[in-house]
Amino acid sequence: MDAISVIRTKRDRGTLSDEQIDWVIDAYTRGEVADEQMSALAMAILLNGMNRDEIARWTAAMIASGERMDFSSLPLPTADKHSTGGVGDKITLPLAPLVAACGAAVPQLSGRGLGHTGGTLDKLEAIPGWRALLSNHEMLGVLRDVGAVICAAGDGLAPADKKLYALRDVTGTVEAIPLIASSIMSKKIAEGTGALVLDVKVGSGAFMKNLDDARELARTMVGLGTDHGVNTVALLTDMSTPLGLTAGNALEVRESVEVLAGGGPADVVELTLALAREMLAAAGVHGKDPADALRDGSAMDHWRRMIAAQGGDPDATLPVARETHVVTAEADGVLTALDAYAVGIAAWRLGAGRARKEDPVQEGAGVEIHAKPGTEIQRGQSLLTLHTNTPEKFDYALRALEGGVEISPAGTEFKPTPIVLERIA
Amino acid sequence: MDAISVIRTKRDRGTLSDEQIDWVIDAYTRGEVADEQMSALAMAILLNGMNRDEIARWTAAMIASGERMDFSSLPLPTADKHSTGGVGDKITLPLAPLVAACGAAVPQLSGRGLGHTGGTLDKLEAIPGWRALLSNHEMLGVLRDVGAVICAAGDGLAPADKKLYALRDVTGTVEAIPLIASSIMSKKIAEGTGALVLDVKVGSGAFMKNLDDARELARTMVGLGTDHGVNTVALLTDMSTPLGLTAGNALEVRESVEVLAGGGPADVVELTLALAREMLAAAGVHGKDPADALRDGSAMDHWRRMIAAQGGDPDATLPVARETHVVTAEADGVLTALDAYAVGIAAWRLGAGRARKEDPVQEGAGVEIHAKPGTEIQRGQSLLTLHTNTPEKFDYALRALEGGVEISPAGTEFKPTPIVLERIA
Repeated sequence: MDAISVIRTKRDRGTLSDEQIDWVIDAYTRGEVADEQMSALAMAILLNGMNRDEIARWTAAMIASGERMDFSSLPLPTADKHSTGGVGDKITLPLAPLVAACGAAVPQLSGRGLGHTGGTLDKLEAIPGWRALLSNHEMLGVLRDVGAVICAAGDGLAPADKKLYALRDVTGTVEAIPLIASSIMSKKIAEGTGALVLDVKVGSGAFMKNLDDARELARTMVGLGTDHGVNTVALLTDMSTPLGLTAGNALEVRESVEVLAGGGPADVVELTLALAREMLAAAGVHGKDPADALRDGSAMDHWRRMIAAQGGDPDATLPVARETHVVTAEADGVLTALDAYAVGIAAWRLGAGRARKEDPVQEGAGVEIHAKPGTEIQRGQSLLTLHTNTPEKFDYALRALEGGVEISPAGTEFKPTPIVLERIA
Repeated sequence: MDAISVIRTKRDRGTLSDEQIDWVIDAYTRGEVADEQMSALAMAILLNGMNRDEIARWTAAMIASGERMDFSSLPLPTADKHSTGGVGDKITLPLAPLVAACGAAVPQLSGRGLGHTGGTLDKLEAIPGWRALLSNHEMLGVLRDVGAVICAAGDGLAPADKKLYALRDVTGTVEAIPLIASSIMSKKIAEGTGALVLDVKVGSGAFMKNLDDARELARTMVGLGTDHGVNTVALLTDMSTPLGLTAGNALEVRESVEVLAGGGPADVVELTLALAREMLAAAGVHGKDPADALRDGSAMDHWRRMIAAQGGDPDATLPVARETHVVTAEADGVLTALDAYAVGIAAWRLGAGRARKEDPVQEGAGVEIHAKPGTEIQRGQSLLTLHTNTPEKFDYALRALEGGVEISPAGTEFKPTPIVLERIA
């Protein structure tokens, strides 16, 4: 077995054998297959595709490259959620304690933001004292005591994926559905959750810009989960405009707490409840309405205990950016578009995101949204507030917003996009 | 400008701009673009192609990555030949002194063998004392004194190609016509020859297995040469069976000397003369028939002076392998096929070639051919003699020959393939 023959098979539109896949993933993890060989293979996969069997074996090989977690000692069924990433997507924050409050355990291994989409760990790190890095033992402890834990994935989980992801990031090979699906699912399956709900975002602010690609990705991932005994469901959800009224780390924590307190923006509440219901159903927990848990304070109680268990102070004042700039409407009319990608890039440029993995983020930076699409607007009215510690970036952020805010003449009919577009099981 | 955007352009079937090509070649040569990025780009080029303008710019950028040689101080016009590589292809050895004897200067920068095809420098190194490595000054001296020089290309010539070629070799991205064409032509154009004749091999023992691919490669290279002011012609020639009666380093030197002495196998003489006539015509040298120079000893005279000028002893006894094994015919009939690839692999396994660049070659190893396709055969008659210092490799070489020797019933009509299949100018 050698790297060149594996590359040639895929280059020439052949099907990789189980032996080829097992060998190349293992040899790459051990450093025997070089980065330049794996990147050539990744490009061949991106351009020539993989069939369902190849994707399943590729995923299994990545799982086998590391350790697997085991939650069978827990008294509760486990359910996890994964979002493919969007702008203002803070859903994990209220969702994990909410589902725990309803009787399923939520072992949520999360990531950091890269590019215009935010990362759950970056958001929670805005809470003074909160720690993302837990040992497996600590993680299991929080999960047992609180019912929910959100933390960084350990190095032992699917190390092949960790290495391959970093490589794809610098070689223009991120956008391959087989590689995206196997990357996400190898981590989730190795994590050992019993049920998994996938939130596959569609639209300008998402990775998948159109419904067909999102559907293909969702079907591929649901198939992989099912094949590995994980009860998996996917929702395709809208990401043409930001979720909620904030994009940025501390700003989104504040909004998440509002949702847990029974308030918060309607779209965030709707999606949180939809995902919670799917997670509970997939975990086999029935008879609890998560809307009640938002109303009766039990979700908030689980949030406070979860944050405190990881060293965070749920009552601490959240960081605030030193400077703000208000964007006002230039005309009367109806706000017909607030582009998710434009807002995501603006928040990123203001300091909420990072350009490279090793960059820090500004906890207080981001975009506050005062009007959502469909709202009637008067000239001069505040549309957005930009927050940053680096005011020299305002111009740069404003350029990202050019063309992203669309005001149509008063009376223009506006047809809102539903949050949940499709369900795939 | 960044590597990922260049990779994405080609990945998404776009056309690379002049600025992208210039930048990526320069940045790769300097080490700013990493090997794993260049290999992803090479795979995208292999699968999505490049148009004529892109190939021309890519070639120009590789030429610009290093120095250019200049033969304008020579009193004679210059002509060079490049073969895409085959089995038993010793043509450069008699050709260079022959063309010099007819009045054109031949600055022949050659390479070493890799895989089943032999390398000109490996062959000449079988001559005791002969040196492949000359400084630019030494090279120009031999060219001026003798009219022909065969030596290794210096490090200064198209360093981008040198780096890219080594990368393609390990990443399954060798077989891309735009990259093959630009690799060959960047070196030949940087070398500064005035006329160039390309010997593009077609058949089992060649890189290009079919006429269509060979024709496309030839047309691309002729276009590149012409665009850079090099008078370029290509011959498509047969490589379904080995050239001549030997494959292996010292064995081929011996056969080349026979040709220079006015003898030698008919196919080697025919192709040597055809290429010599093309080189002389392309260099604008008229009125000399190279067949005369083989008959009158002037080609041999140039050979002896050329070898001596590079430290070799033209009268030295050539190395001989310690062990031989004779392959005999298993049936009466007509030899209808002697596969070039099978013979090439057998010679390679016997020690004539190398698996990795740093491996040594056996000077005496190789295959001697006693019957060419079309010959009537009697059972038990010698077909091949295998030569090696490592007789434990005989079995391994014999396995390569299985299916490569085809004997059909006596009386079977055999239609010989012409050596020169097509001419492209």
